[in-house]
Amino acid sequence: MALDPKIAERLKRTPDGLVPAIVQQHDTGEVLMLAWMDDEALHRTLTTGRATYWSRSRAEYWVKGDTSGHVQWVRHVALDCDGDTILLKVDQVGAACHTGDRTCFDADVLESTMPAVNAPGPDPST
Amino acid sequence: MALDPKIAERLKRTPDGLVPAIVQQHDTGEVLMLAWMDDEALHRTLTTGRATYWSRSRAEYWVKGDTSGHVQWVRHVALDCDGDTILLKVDQVGAACHTGDRTCFDADVLESTMPAVNAPGPDPST
Repeated sequence: MALDPKIAERLKRTPDGLVPAIVQQHDTGEVLMLAWMDDEALHRTLTTGRATYWSRSRAEYWVKGDTSGHVQWVRHVALDCDGDTILLKVDQVGAACHTGDRTCFDADVLESTMPAVNAPGPDPST
Repeated sequence: MALDPKIAERLKRTPDGLVPAIVQQHDTGEVLMLAWMDDEALHRTLTTGRATYWSRSRAEYWVKGDTSGHVQWVRHVALDCDGDTILLKVDQVGAACHTGDRTCFDADVLESTMPAVNAPGPDPST
């Protein structure tokens, strides 16, 4: 079995045959990571309920959590308006990032005018 | 002026010199769109407070909202753990998508086990 042809015909792929997938925690809205899918990875993601990617560095399929236990259970899959990006809403078990951070965007903030999520509030004794 | 070299040295770019930028509404967490930045677009985004991309189709810089009025005011910019993806949290004026939809991911849902945001609830009279 392969990816539904009605979906495959709407995908716009990179020259490598890949589509970027934005991965978001379904209830909190946290953006967890970006990964890449080919048609087969998208097919497996849709049919198994486990987020499955193409690893560009290892050149193999990668079922998120198979090694780390940090599984992503798929809740929602959408294509963008021009078919070149996937949005995956998942229920993330544990950390999404291989560094142990909850998301891959926690450690390297370039600029922010927003309060840090875990910033201590003002000292109530002062 | 160009992009801060301390940031530039952490970026991992595609062969075209680009980095994908995930764009998220800062308060609701909605993922609005994916766009692409080169060093100059990131520099302009960080220094002007207006989300600025490289348009692959038009091969030019694109200040979001200059034509449509649908400006993105930048609130937070982060790099991911391996420097090949940007997360931009913005305050989106109006629709992010050129189709008029709030996000580029509203129209083409492939699979969902989540309730639609505006789905009517059960009829209270039954």
